[in-house]
Amino acid sequence: MTTWTRVPDTHPFSVHALPYGSFSMASDVTDEAGPDGPSRRRVGVAIGDQVLDLTSVTAELAPDLAATFADGTMDRLLAAGRPVWSRVRAAVVDWLTDPAFQTDVERHLLPLQDVVLHLPFDVADYVDFYASEHHATNLGRMFRPDQEPLTANWKHLPIGYHGRAGTIVPSGTPVQRPAGLRRGPDGDVTFGASARLDIETELGFVVGTSSTLGTPVPLEQFDQHVFGVCLVNDWSARDIQAFEYVPLGPFLGKSFATSIGHWVLPLEALEHARVRPPTRDVPLAHYLDDTLTGEWGLDIDFEVTLNGVVVSRPPFAPMYWTAAQQLAHMTINGAALRTGDFFASGTISGPEREQRGSLIELSWGGSEPLTLEDGSTRTFLEDGDEVLISASAPGPDGTRIGLGTVRGRITPNTQPTGE
Amino acid sequence: MTTWTRVPDTHPFSVHALPYGSFSMASDVTDEAGPDGPSRRRVGVAIGDQVLDLTSVTAELAPDLAATFADGTMDRLLAAGRPVWSRVRAAVVDWLTDPAFQTDVERHLLPLQDVVLHLPFDVADYVDFYASEHHATNLGRMFRPDQEPLTANWKHLPIGYHGRAGTIVPSGTPVQRPAGLRRGPDGDVTFGASARLDIETELGFVVGTSSTLGTPVPLEQFDQHVFGVCLVNDWSARDIQAFEYVPLGPFLGKSFATSIGHWVLPLEALEHARVRPPTRDVPLAHYLDDTLTGEWGLDIDFEVTLNGVVVSRPPFAPMYWTAAQQLAHMTINGAALRTGDFFASGTISGPEREQRGSLIELSWGGSEPLTLEDGSTRTFLEDGDEVLISASAPGPDGTRIGLGTVRGRITPNTQPTGE
Repeated sequence: MTTWTRVPDTHPFSVHALPYGSFSMASDVTDEAGPDGPSRRRVGVAIGDQVLDLTSVTAELAPDLAATFADGTMDRLLAAGRPVWSRVRAAVVDWLTDPAFQTDVERHLLPLQDVVLHLPFDVADYVDFYASEHHATNLGRMFRPDQEPLTANWKHLPIGYHGRAGTIVPSGTPVQRPAGLRRGPDGDVTFGASARLDIETELGFVVGTSSTLGTPVPLEQFDQHVFGVCLVNDWSARDIQAFEYVPLGPFLGKSFATSIGHWVLPLEALEHARVRPPTRDVPLAHYLDDTLTGEWGLDIDFEVTLNGVVVSRPPFAPMYWTAAQQLAHMTINGAALRTGDFFASGTISGPEREQRGSLIELSWGGSEPLTLEDGSTRTFLEDGDEVLISASAPGPDGTRIGLGTVRGRITPNTQPTGE
Repeated sequence: MTTWTRVPDTHPFSVHALPYGSFSMASDVTDEAGPDGPSRRRVGVAIGDQVLDLTSVTAELAPDLAATFADGTMDRLLAAGRPVWSRVRAAVVDWLTDPAFQTDVERHLLPLQDVVLHLPFDVADYVDFYASEHHATNLGRMFRPDQEPLTANWKHLPIGYHGRAGTIVPSGTPVQRPAGLRRGPDGDVTFGASARLDIETELGFVVGTSSTLGTPVPLEQFDQHVFGVCLVNDWSARDIQAFEYVPLGPFLGKSFATSIGHWVLPLEALEHARVRPPTRDVPLAHYLDDTLTGEWGLDIDFEVTLNGVVVSRPPFAPMYWTAAQQLAHMTINGAALRTGDFFASGTISGPEREQRGSLIELSWGGSEPLTLEDGSTRTFLEDGDEVLISASAPGPDGTRIGLGTVRGRITPNTQPTGE
């Protein structure tokens, strides 16, 4: 499959990737509504260092699809379902590979540097899982040193909890260090800016079509409901979290911000990345047993950089629970899905130290500082630190497909402490 | 204040209450869009056994307010902020009390029995708190018998967690018994319909105006952001919850359904209900210290009936944490509010047995069954059981103001067990 755009197969956003996003023209900043003005938003597909404006190209070349992209977010596309998802992707591939379309399509290609990227879809409910055995074991050892690291339920079901949808922000949004109540080693409870601000390297799954209240979504319907994936950095204030999370789970330690990538890669682009998940040690309940339904392990390689230095390379393939199992679990009680529901994998940590997806693991609770290239050391994030997460997956014929990046820089907390 | 509608002050929905809701005409069922069709929705205010159609009455009598009610949900009103909330309420009071308006207003009054009531607003994020010391103590004794009943953080901060916004349903929606994984007393993990299905009697708070990411909402701005209250029944499957909730909190044990009342009572109607909350045993962090900002304890009396029999009368006044403290806490880490955010108090339980707001407390974990009037006994809910929660608060001059009702009936779980 070659494209007249001359984007090579070695580009992360080659014609084998084709992720979707929401953008407006940087030049619209001068408009009264600004680049965020809903009227200025468009849906685009990334190809190389350009974006194909689907809102305008469909109006010309596929008028029956134009309404799907008219509001400038992915929401209508997500709601439209798998047959439309396939049709749109096939049309985009045609437009970008058939030289007969070059003249008509070319004028809808815009340099990425000229656009402002937004949150790609409106987030309905957000659920965060806890699917890496290595991560859960590491955290268990640190948070509950006197107990078995994995709780008794861990291998029976994919543990998850609801997060705050309203504070999901697009890549590049500055992240203000949160303040809150922490308990010191002496038991004293004090208010102040978090001293243990951390990242969580995760993969997010975007729900397209809704489901009916009272009707679970079985494993084999995963790809009928889930449109695709995007990168996630689930920022975590470990000191706030540690004090608050018993018995009802994480709350303010997580809810100040969750950054997601600008690009949603459709599941279809990941067909070469599907792998068998790890052997399960505990027999699975029927609704979680994926041995006969097609497994959704994904061979995706992540890379985490802190101020430009690679600090970890977490692999997704060893994740114990797959997204299909997470979706089946999330709905087994009859809970309904809505278009725009979003669920994340939980921190991706591999078995090796340099594969851990959070700083609390990399620095082992702060006791083993990392040394960066400039000689400085880190346990947790400092003000001004910038974290960038990227990922790629196998494509056809030995190529690699990019999932984009998610980026965020820490800004200081400026709140009075009230003391 | 007398009204030409002849609704007496003794009516729960007297002219002192005036809660808001979203409705359509039952007769519109014949329309293609059905009564749920967005085009048919209107915003109304309850007065006695009637509803004042604000969508139509403002179009005639207050054209500048008409756009606020044009979409048939409370969303635009909520976003409009306190000055508009006050102006609308004052206008409605005028229309219902000044006989000069009778002719023009009367034709916009519809019998409640002729309308279908909907979810009153679109729920953004949903947070559930845990604010009753009596409830938390009871649950702690049952769930963690070997530990102190209150966790170490409980009196330092209002514990809360995010719930599933997408499964908040309006009063009257049937509630299907959820299925899931439970661990028996022998440690065996099995899948099946919940055998410990419960209620939680709660009060919910509806956020009107949004806030800025990174900027906490202080206690004294509570009534600038929160529009009003409605009743909540936070259905809970105790067996599913008990197995899943460590370490990340309740998930499927709660997310199958949360019922809320049709009517949102504005804070202004509760001015006679404000009381001082209980004395706090532990010094409060500055952002939770409400001694100088005006306290938001509320003297509201709840009543819970099961199949028509009163099983509990929980009082709201003894709640340890107020909604103003919950809002300040929820945002102290910089988390933003959106219009339609909704947060609930947590189960309301008073100090006495007959004041407990859940069946797990009333039957003490199932060991002390309740006897209903027909001689049957209950520990947890059986299929076909109907729960109705109502509440009232002091109004002016010795009157009582109704908060409406929230009702739900349990339907059987029909899923195959997969065995």
